[in-house]
Amino acid sequence: MSLVAVDWGTSSLRGALLDDAGRVLEEKTAPRGILTVPAGEFSAVFDSIFAAWMRATGRFCLISGMAGSQQGWAEAPYETCPAGLPDLARRLCWIESGRIAIVPGLCDEHDGVPDVMRGEEVQIFGAMRLTGMTTGLLVLPGTHNKWATVRDGRVTGFRTCMTGEFYSLLSQHSILARTLQADAPLDEAAFLRGVACAANGEGLLHNAFGARTLGLFRRMPPPALASYLSGVLIGEELRTQPLRGIRDVVLIGAPALTTRYALALKTVGIDARALGAEATWAGAFALHTVLQAQRSS
Amino acid sequence: MSLVAVDWGTSSLRGALLDDAGRVLEEKTAPRGILTVPAGEFSAVFDSIFAAWMRATGRFCLISGMAGSQQGWAEAPYETCPAGLPDLARRLCWIESGRIAIVPGLCDEHDGVPDVMRGEEVQIFGAMRLTGMTTGLLVLPGTHNKWATVRDGRVTGFRTCMTGEFYSLLSQHSILARTLQADAPLDEAAFLRGVACAANGEGLLHNAFGARTLGLFRRMPPPALASYLSGVLIGEELRTQPLRGIRDVVLIGAPALTTRYALALKTVGIDARALGAEATWAGAFALHTVLQAQRSS
Repeated sequence: MSLVAVDWGTSSLRGALLDDAGRVLEEKTAPRGILTVPAGEFSAVFDSIFAAWMRATGRFCLISGMAGSQQGWAEAPYETCPAGLPDLARRLCWIESGRIAIVPGLCDEHDGVPDVMRGEEVQIFGAMRLTGMTTGLLVLPGTHNKWATVRDGRVTGFRTCMTGEFYSLLSQHSILARTLQADAPLDEAAFLRGVACAANGEGLLHNAFGARTLGLFRRMPPPALASYLSGVLIGEELRTQPLRGIRDVVLIGAPALTTRYALALKTVGIDARALGAEATWAGAFALHTVLQAQRSS
Repeated sequence: MSLVAVDWGTSSLRGALLDDAGRVLEEKTAPRGILTVPAGEFSAVFDSIFAAWMRATGRFCLISGMAGSQQGWAEAPYETCPAGLPDLARRLCWIESGRIAIVPGLCDEHDGVPDVMRGEEVQIFGAMRLTGMTTGLLVLPGTHNKWATVRDGRVTGFRTCMTGEFYSLLSQHSILARTLQADAPLDEAAFLRGVACAANGEGLLHNAFGARTLGLFRRMPPPALASYLSGVLIGEELRTQPLRGIRDVVLIGAPALTTRYALALKTVGIDARALGAEATWAGAFALHTVLQAQRSS
């Protein structure tokens, strides 16, 4: 009864084969994000990557991420917060009954404006399992960052920040792109100066322009400007989150991103623990365990 | 002694021939922004457009805008705020002595981060002349909006907001572009809902995502989403400006933009007057008058 866990996102795809105890036996990544898959060909792409893993009797596959969106393999529902693993298990979107299922996303709402996630919910449940933290705050940096609160093992709410996408747009397509070296290594001092700048309350629309003028007036060397802009963006994100009383958070994502969030959070006195892909696999395994319990009861 | 006034920007160029009383005799526009002019060819492009106007004896030309930047015809200095018309007149960058000059830009600084404008300073002085308001707040919407404060006829300080550029980036290059119709006509109700949303203090990085989810959940029709995003951006700008105690502002820009700012400002109890290109011509004429007085004294 081992498990194939797949995180099928917009631009790429990752999978892991887990044994009965949830240990990762093998991992795969492929540049086959849903944007590269024509409608009707998801099944063929899945088979081309995972047929060997799925061949053993009783193997079961849980897919999370944008594969469950309108543009994905099949549209999975959104489960409304607060939501726990049993809620997700009950609302799986079955591709092949008892064999392949897509995990529902989560939705939340603030002042009549909906918010959504797909894929991060599995990482959040995995992080709770791995860290033992079942009440607190989790941050999932990426193109569309999620700040999620959990209580007693359930996701009580979350907010999306388009921080990663704003960084790409500004560093590649805006006037800032002319002077900024988007791939320069992290300059911690410039990054922290950007974080501090965001706290002035004058807003991102104004503060981002500093990444141009600091270069224009030669107050900051060109390789440092990208780090400054990154700091302004992440600092803005921190400024708008309800961090009062928070002592520690769990970060889930690529180390290049979680490192920056940990640095920024430290400036407001918050310690951060960081997890990577292991959160996805732990979450899928936890969901699978709950599903088996539901089916046998 | 009539005047040729030219506003030479990044993507386009406008000029006006003024008589001795500052009245506009003729206007021209050309798609010859500085980005279209190779280095060394500014003089030829200028002649190709304005030779006929400049032929009369004693005609004088004042050029404002990005033609005075590093990538322009010649690099004009930045005059530091607070600055008045006499300061600009003293620091003209002469292309041809006594005949063609580029107006200096203005710079300001907040917490060690410089801010700059080129071209807007002439519009601001023109607006003061046209409206009679010499102490107050002016807003110049555009790619890089300027919020400027004036006192006793001098520009005391200003801030840039990249609002226009953020709107272009988000509506054309971000995930929002998939569902948003950037050229849809203004939907006032959706725009004002966006303005109101910005006041929630959760920040642009989060609030912009609403322009996706409101469409995804069919809570707002696709043609209204662009107006909503525009409202979120302009509302964010208002949120971060020092508007306490302000009763009226002067807006300078294209009517499609000043209309939106007037609508948004009305929600916080501020009346707005709007000016267009006439502010540029009035500012150039006022500067010319001051220059003549300086030269004859």
